[in-house]
Amino acid sequence: MKLDFDKFGGLVPAVIQDDKSGRVLMVGFMNEEAFQKTVETGYATFYSRTRNKLWMKGETSGHRLVVKEISTDCDQDTVLVRVEALGPGVCHEGYQSCFFRRLEDGAWIVSEERAYNPNQVYGSKS
Amino acid sequence: MKLDFDKFGGLVPAVIQDDKSGRVLMVGFMNEEAFQKTVETGYATFYSRTRNKLWMKGETSGHRLVVKEISTDCDQDTVLVRVEALGPGVCHEGYQSCFFRRLEDGAWIVSEERAYNPNQVYGSKS
Repeated sequence: MKLDFDKFGGLVPAVIQDDKSGRVLMVGFMNEEAFQKTVETGYATFYSRTRNKLWMKGETSGHRLVVKEISTDCDQDTVLVRVEALGPGVCHEGYQSCFFRRLEDGAWIVSEERAYNPNQVYGSKS
Repeated sequence: MKLDFDKFGGLVPAVIQDDKSGRVLMVGFMNEEAFQKTVETGYATFYSRTRNKLWMKGETSGHRLVVKEISTDCDQDTVLVRVEALGPGVCHEGYQSCFFRRLEDGAWIVSEERAYNPNQVYGSKS
């Protein structure tokens, strides 16, 4: 019983959920190699569509995602990965979760404080 | 500030999470029209890639997803929808969540009981 990587050009969406709080932290994409790496290393690894390469989350920041449990859905074309997130935040913009904007009256509102300063972790872009 | 529907051929992944339990129930895709319908009607509505049309979850089963909160991620190319799920289960195979298979020692194992009989809701395929 294998994952269906064909439906989406070799990729499956991977929902990353905090194992303790249940918060959805980010959604990335995995190709078959990234999925295998995730299983083998125990650290969530994705395929970057913009950079066309594998990336282990946390390879720059140290904020790795330690795999606790992996599930797949009825169509086997999506995975859900419960993780322990190392570090204060998963989002490269400094937030605990990438889902830090909430829809309110038709506008996307930042709905939480930053958990860390991204410039100190990833370096300033200036 | 708009969602980025261009990255994925007009679609964004939509993670559906139970508002009370925090359980991830399913992942679907929305095009801009499906997203607007979701916001306007208050019921999660998706775009079916196989049927090439909008579908409101629950239009057959009655198991609608009542929208409680919508978030988007840093890239604004994914949405997270917290819902109250009407009915015993979201998955058309009879489970509470579509993510009813867990990876164990390299195999996908069904890790929960069905919450309802799908043949009674969707009709038998025989």
